[in-house]
Amino acid sequence: MNPIEIPNATKVRLIQLLQLLKDWPKQKITSLDISKATNWKSSLIRHDFWLIGFSKGVSNGYAVCELQQAIKNALGIQGPDSIHNKKESNGAYVQNTDSETSSTLLKNICIVGLDRLGSALLDERFFENSGFKIKAGFDSNVNRVEILRSVFPLYPATEMAMTIKREKIEYAILTVSDKDAQNMTNRLFSAGIKGIVNMTNVILKVPEYVKVQNLSILNSLNLIV
Amino acid sequence: MNPIEIPNATKVRLIQLLQLLKDWPKQKITSLDISKATNWKSSLIRHDFWLIGFSKGVSNGYAVCELQQAIKNALGIQGPDSIHNKKESNGAYVQNTDSETSSTLLKNICIVGLDRLGSALLDERFFENSGFKIKAGFDSNVNRVEILRSVFPLYPATEMAMTIKREKIEYAILTVSDKDAQNMTNRLFSAGIKGIVNMTNVILKVPEYVKVQNLSILNSLNLIV
Repeated sequence: MNPIEIPNATKVRLIQLLQLLKDWPKQKITSLDISKATNWKSSLIRHDFWLIGFSKGVSNGYAVCELQQAIKNALGIQGPDSIHNKKESNGAYVQNTDSETSSTLLKNICIVGLDRLGSALLDERFFENSGFKIKAGFDSNVNRVEILRSVFPLYPATEMAMTIKREKIEYAILTVSDKDAQNMTNRLFSAGIKGIVNMTNVILKVPEYVKVQNLSILNSLNLIV
Repeated sequence: MNPIEIPNATKVRLIQLLQLLKDWPKQKITSLDISKATNWKSSLIRHDFWLIGFSKGVSNGYAVCELQQAIKNALGIQGPDSIHNKKESNGAYVQNTDSETSSTLLKNICIVGLDRLGSALLDERFFENSGFKIKAGFDSNVNRVEILRSVFPLYPATEMAMTIKREKIEYAILTVSDKDAQNMTNRLFSAGIKGIVNMTNVILKVPEYVKVQNLSILNSLNLIV
């Protein structure tokens, strides 16, 4: 997906920068503006832009729109703009009202583990305009799957492999208990999952082609102490 | 708290290593064992140990117990061992049943924002034996504070500054909506909060003495794509 290999630290900054640009009130933004809002050095910001091949800055700042597009292209992010528009035969881009076409452009995710934290993520607002779409929730507790109310389809963990393949799910958010984390992870990558957001406290062992982002709240607390 | 300044990447590995050691079935662990479980290079592991001044490895491996203690000391982590034991006048360490004494050794945290995600964190099991204790939940929606059932005291956001000082709360988990994130952050550090686990998608501006760990689920998804 990514045309160039970008270091992770740069990716994190670029993603945070997208958040800043989304609400930026003006059409231009200078590296000084960015520096003030983020506390990053101007030289670092310019270096990040150089890494993604963006060098369109002029003396009065970067065009916000062009910068957003450059970052999205570099990170392989499908913004809502590119999701909701398609090219007509006359060459014009129009709003895409065909939900089937639209959903094939979204990246499909699942939530694995529907205890308090996992079920809290079964919330449409989280992933609104994000380019991601929840296609399924899984839990090994069949009762929980039956009782939970959700706008998303929920399945017992025994149906995980089948559902992941059928629904073309590529990414998972793992919110199971620590003791189930590795077992569920094994099943996820065997079923073809390409990346995991790991909210457990466990170090997951995965094949090299599976990407993991660790998001343990407990480990993060220990890092700010 | 930290006797030595340790790079963040090392901290992250050491915290993950603590998780591995917690369930390690043997009394010794070799750097090869660690390398197999984590995919880190042996040289990196030894470098991390050198950074925290731990060099007690012998040919048949590190003593798990000593390694755990060395990591906890280096990171300034109060393990459950040190929390639940106190020294008797006869010099023996005994189980501490005095909950008042015990709670003063725990680090006090609060949850700010009690929408789905925030209220899911109001769960004792998350912070069991972690060295952290939830002292309060806050939300600017007074109705929500009144309706939510929780074993922890909940307060309207207007009482945040007062409660943080009274309850000696030092760390916050921020789970408000993106649009409220910076406003709430300002109020948190004005009230004396020393560190924030930021679960919003926003780049927070904080004074230099406030530590922030960014745990945005959406940003993490974008990083594994």
